[in-house]
Amino acid sequence: MRIRKAKPTLTAHILALLVLFLLAFSSVHAQQSDPMPSWAEGPTRSAIIQFVQEVTKQGGPDYVQPKDRIATFDNDGTLWVEYPMYTQLLFAIDRVKELAPQHPEWKTQQPFKALLEGDMKTVGASGMKGLMEIVMATHSGMTAAEFEKTVTKWLATHKQPRFKRLYTECVYQPQLELLTYLRANGFKTFIVSGGGIQFMRPMTEKTYGIPPEQIVGSSVVTEFQIKDGKPVLVRMPKIDFINDKAGKPVGIYEHIGRRPILAFGNADADMQMIQYTMAGEGRRLGLFLHHTDADREYAYDRDSHVGKLDKALDQADANGWVIVDMKKDWKTVFP
Amino acid sequence: MRIRKAKPTLTAHILALLVLFLLAFSSVHAQQSDPMPSWAEGPTRSAIIQFVQEVTKQGGPDYVQPKDRIATFDNDGTLWVEYPMYTQLLFAIDRVKELAPQHPEWKTQQPFKALLEGDMKTVGASGMKGLMEIVMATHSGMTAAEFEKTVTKWLATHKQPRFKRLYTECVYQPQLELLTYLRANGFKTFIVSGGGIQFMRPMTEKTYGIPPEQIVGSSVVTEFQIKDGKPVLVRMPKIDFINDKAGKPVGIYEHIGRRPILAFGNADADMQMIQYTMAGEGRRLGLFLHHTDADREYAYDRDSHVGKLDKALDQADANGWVIVDMKKDWKTVFP
Repeated sequence: MRIRKAKPTLTAHILALLVLFLLAFSSVHAQQSDPMPSWAEGPTRSAIIQFVQEVTKQGGPDYVQPKDRIATFDNDGTLWVEYPMYTQLLFAIDRVKELAPQHPEWKTQQPFKALLEGDMKTVGASGMKGLMEIVMATHSGMTAAEFEKTVTKWLATHKQPRFKRLYTECVYQPQLELLTYLRANGFKTFIVSGGGIQFMRPMTEKTYGIPPEQIVGSSVVTEFQIKDGKPVLVRMPKIDFINDKAGKPVGIYEHIGRRPILAFGNADADMQMIQYTMAGEGRRLGLFLHHTDADREYAYDRDSHVGKLDKALDQADANGWVIVDMKKDWKTVFP
Repeated sequence: MRIRKAKPTLTAHILALLVLFLLAFSSVHAQQSDPMPSWAEGPTRSAIIQFVQEVTKQGGPDYVQPKDRIATFDNDGTLWVEYPMYTQLLFAIDRVKELAPQHPEWKTQQPFKALLEGDMKTVGASGMKGLMEIVMATHSGMTAAEFEKTVTKWLATHKQPRFKRLYTECVYQPQLELLTYLRANGFKTFIVSGGGIQFMRPMTEKTYGIPPEQIVGSSVVTEFQIKDGKPVLVRMPKIDFINDKAGKPVGIYEHIGRRPILAFGNADADMQMIQYTMAGEGRRLGLFLHHTDADREYAYDRDSHVGKLDKALDQADANGWVIVDMKKDWKTVFP
């Protein structure tokens, strides 16, 4: 066979471009054909996909510019397991046990004494004051770098008792798909959680693909100091901001500076974030995850001591909030 | 002439791809050949370009992953004019005048009385307490949306007296080029300013290409409230956080959650930000803009009442901080 050497004609160029275009298009299409395989067919999934299609449809009545495609997600109970106890509280309890040798006074001082003796009833009875003492003893009095190291190590070595996997593996597969789907459609995804901002940051980038600067959470007062000639940030035993309930829209205002068009929570503590989101102009989507699946995860709502979901269930219909039913709407729960 | 219809050969395809590649490459090359035309040739410009080349050189000893390419810039006196008075203070003074008819008590109450009579000496003598009263009267007591609207309108209608242009046009062309150059090299650019976070946000995206979520600044306490059935954020007459001096590294920790590798300021109030930046591992760059150009802008440093640059000048050499000399290092000042 003779190889014919030909100067490429205009037609050839156009065809080459067409091939490139088709390749690019088919790959995008393949990615988008089922962006959320863990979400069961039904009105919930459709509501999400329809929303995304409408706000990204250029020229459409609900089109939103990419810069305004802000999506905020609660963390505990929305992106990862929070039941029967918040992961951060389990971390604090573990830390009290680990730090006990350096604190002989805890042998007689409540709520530490009760905690070290495994008497969680007395710990609970110490109320918010006792809880704060535990949080402060374990979340302050060290540099930012030391705290980050401690959290990273704890997360890499402690497992959720029921599922026997790392806490960072007790995240919800359907939500990972939703985050990816939103980002593929030009959304910027944020976490807006009542949890500690610096407790979350060591894990959010690797686990959810959300960088530290897109995390909003509760904080302790931090001070800049020069120690041994080196500048350090020292975490002080004083609450700076509680990013929960009415604090969530405030945290969004301070950190993000624009109103989300999509917000996803799972508890009454997320209502203000959803209300704030829905009150903006144009198309909005507010979602609550309802934990209805005792077999695959947990079932809890109105009477729960964590992630109480009560008023939001009652007010969802009237406000157009979408209730995601874990049992019905999720084909798989964990990755 | 006969037009020959040819099936595109493999060679043609490869050539077409090559053409596309060369076009893409030459356009990138053209953009990069002089990324900062307003910066004069010399050690300052070289220090910046060398730094960017080294931290982006894959496999090199100073390579930094894109996610860690965080650059922070002060605003007043670093990105836009701050002399002879901070823009935000001029805004506050104008607002007092505009709001005076609704506040008959200001006719007898200091520092408002003095301000309305143009007696700036008495205003100055009222000190920090007086200044805070002026800031609170003009920056709180309204919703977030109302404040944003007021700032946007003021910025669109008031001009800097000497340069006779809008304040958003009194920005430094070399810095706009630097911001663009950094972003083109995978950096995420942030503003970290002592100015009000919500005073800056209405202008930063359009002016600097920096979105609201990448602005760190001082803030007032804000409350979420339901007013007439609508959720609103109300700005309260209480300081929440002063993002200046030792507050800057703290603001960076809270908002960004990772240490910058490049920081740019212009005053002693930026020293802690630069110290914190430089104290990280690996290659770092800390810069101070020295206002040395009375002809094209202003000349001020050690004795200035705004943007005082004194200790940083003394300590620059020992710490490897780069002093940018406006007169020598900038070929043009304004766009």
